[in-house]
Amino acid sequence: MTNTSEVFARHVGGKLEIRGTVPLENREDLSIAYTPGVAKVCTAIADDASLAATYTWASRLVAVVSDGTAVLGLGDIGPKAALPVMEGKACLFKRFGGVDAVPIVLETTDTDEIVETVTRIAPSFGGINLEDISAPRCFEIERRLVDQLDMPVMHDDQHGTAIVVLAALRNAAQLVGAKLSDLRVVVSGAGAAGVACTNILLAAGIGDIAVADSRGIIHSGRGDLTPVKSGLAERTNATGITGTLDDALRGADVFLGVSAGSVPESAVATMADNAIIFALANPNPEIDPEIAHRYASVVATGRSDHPNQINNVLAFPGVFRGAFDASAKAITEHMKLAAADALAAVVADELRPDQVLPTPFDPRVGPSVAAAVSAAALATGVAGS
Amino acid sequence: MTNTSEVFARHVGGKLEIRGTVPLENREDLSIAYTPGVAKVCTAIADDASLAATYTWASRLVAVVSDGTAVLGLGDIGPKAALPVMEGKACLFKRFGGVDAVPIVLETTDTDEIVETVTRIAPSFGGINLEDISAPRCFEIERRLVDQLDMPVMHDDQHGTAIVVLAALRNAAQLVGAKLSDLRVVVSGAGAAGVACTNILLAAGIGDIAVADSRGIIHSGRGDLTPVKSGLAERTNATGITGTLDDALRGADVFLGVSAGSVPESAVATMADNAIIFALANPNPEIDPEIAHRYASVVATGRSDHPNQINNVLAFPGVFRGAFDASAKAITEHMKLAAADALAAVVADELRPDQVLPTPFDPRVGPSVAAAVSAAALATGVAGS
Repeated sequence: MTNTSEVFARHVGGKLEIRGTVPLENREDLSIAYTPGVAKVCTAIADDASLAATYTWASRLVAVVSDGTAVLGLGDIGPKAALPVMEGKACLFKRFGGVDAVPIVLETTDTDEIVETVTRIAPSFGGINLEDISAPRCFEIERRLVDQLDMPVMHDDQHGTAIVVLAALRNAAQLVGAKLSDLRVVVSGAGAAGVACTNILLAAGIGDIAVADSRGIIHSGRGDLTPVKSGLAERTNATGITGTLDDALRGADVFLGVSAGSVPESAVATMADNAIIFALANPNPEIDPEIAHRYASVVATGRSDHPNQINNVLAFPGVFRGAFDASAKAITEHMKLAAADALAAVVADELRPDQVLPTPFDPRVGPSVAAAVSAAALATGVAGS
Repeated sequence: MTNTSEVFARHVGGKLEIRGTVPLENREDLSIAYTPGVAKVCTAIADDASLAATYTWASRLVAVVSDGTAVLGLGDIGPKAALPVMEGKACLFKRFGGVDAVPIVLETTDTDEIVETVTRIAPSFGGINLEDISAPRCFEIERRLVDQLDMPVMHDDQHGTAIVVLAALRNAAQLVGAKLSDLRVVVSGAGAAGVACTNILLAAGIGDIAVADSRGIIHSGRGDLTPVKSGLAERTNATGITGTLDDALRGADVFLGVSAGSVPESAVATMADNAIIFALANPNPEIDPEIAHRYASVVATGRSDHPNQINNVLAFPGVFRGAFDASAKAITEHMKLAAADALAAVVADELRPDQVLPTPFDPRVGPSVAAAVSAAALATGVAGS
């Protein structure tokens, strides 16, 4: 681990800057980029709003929006303290997707106010990446913004994670010789990532998924479910099992941890042969990788110092790049599935138990994901003119 | 004038881009700029909010906020069509002040909603430049944001213009051998620029100012005044003159046009000897410069193709640069006066009737204004720790 003083030194002054892309060296430059010349461009857009996509940066600009309520493993630290993460995210957007992104951290945690505020500033942007907003508000905020805005909107803690998990699981299943649809999956955690991962796994054809929250397996008989968890109960746990997470693991093929907490080795030992363990809690995986390897054929974590890191940066830069390339008006489930497939395909010919995903620095990742997302947008009619 | 196709060509893709300022070439870079390293920086800011100034870009970032209601001479063209101007403004901030700025155009024109929205996104920024928001809403919006936000807030159409006008008038008075306090000034226009120019001229010691709007000279006997114009009536026109703009010009030393409309030559001819004419309407000055030169010793316009251009870019980049350098919590009248004095001083030794202001490309401008603003902030106690 890098020492603390080096970390702070790299953050001095923040991690982003703005650059003008037009020359401003003489009076004529000024009269083109600004008054009076710019008035012609403004008038053209006022007459035909679609020209904004050509003559402003907004159509290729993402707002990384957070209220600072669920930042990394730190929880509710507020907008100012969340900003270094959002700046980092913007750096990753540019580096791995060629996408410009601006952090917008909010002085409110109210669902209505967040939706209202993002809607009001939306003409400044071409896409909205929601980030580190706590559940269950994150679900409603995303749903309402998707409904109201005619542009790509994605809560990355949900869908970025889900895309990378599906890609890794596709390759892990390939390695152990199983079909996705035959896997019995246990998801630990019913927050933003847990819900989205469950949804994408269902969409990818996995039928047998049990989700557990801190109170145990989610089933429709429980009286303590939020609306989002009630929805999960309807779509998962077809066999109607009850009990604890440990109970659910008996005979399971896949453990997907997107929570905190830890799973005892005795429960891990009850999983099926050729198990797959994705223990994504950071910095402490739900199952210690050393223990996981005793029982599983493929192990992934959220940590950069272990192989098979489930890292959202494998997804979000390419997803927005692809959406922008297609002038997509939304990011659909079909586009997310295509992103996962493309990400998995990058290392399809190089699969090993310690390599079910490419690294973020593999130059094939961003372009592959972007191309697949763009093609999916075009195929499903959400691409713009 | 540059041809239209060249103007549009320069605007393709917009005029701004984001750059990350930290390396992202390997896993260690990633673990410093993003997880897990960034968590240390977030935690430090959560514990001590003042550290955000050091470890994020927000404290040196301006939001260029507009609702698109009063864009250049184009009027209410909406947020999307206003964006090319705001991008241009951000380019000028960087080029002439080294200040990063992000355009935020708003899908609302409601005063309360604008104040509320800017307040909510404020933790993302270190300063707010209000731009092209129509009067009289611009006055209330600025006042409320100044009250609510602990950072520099300035409506540039008001104060940027006012600073440059005062600088030019100071030098013009010097040229004609008059003291500012002896001048009789007529201001045509009581919108954003007219009100702010009047206020700064009063603050600079000019006692005799008459302001005219489209209905004639503003005086306290008029029954049709908005609250802002009633305030003007109280502070100006001490001699209580009534009538038209033309009436006001009889014997006046200075004409300051910040409106549309045009002044007949017969009225210009009634001004005092050694008159000073600043006819700033764009693209058509209220008094044609050729006519103005027949009666005035110094003539300035808002046009880049004439000498003595009154151009806000001479002020706003240095004003925000200086405010940021001093960690100022506001932009006070004292800081604006200091900016005007510093701007005037740049060409004090090179004064000519056709050079009462430096050009924007004079490399002394930004640093001089910034230094004066910063010193004024420190002297008056609005500088931060």
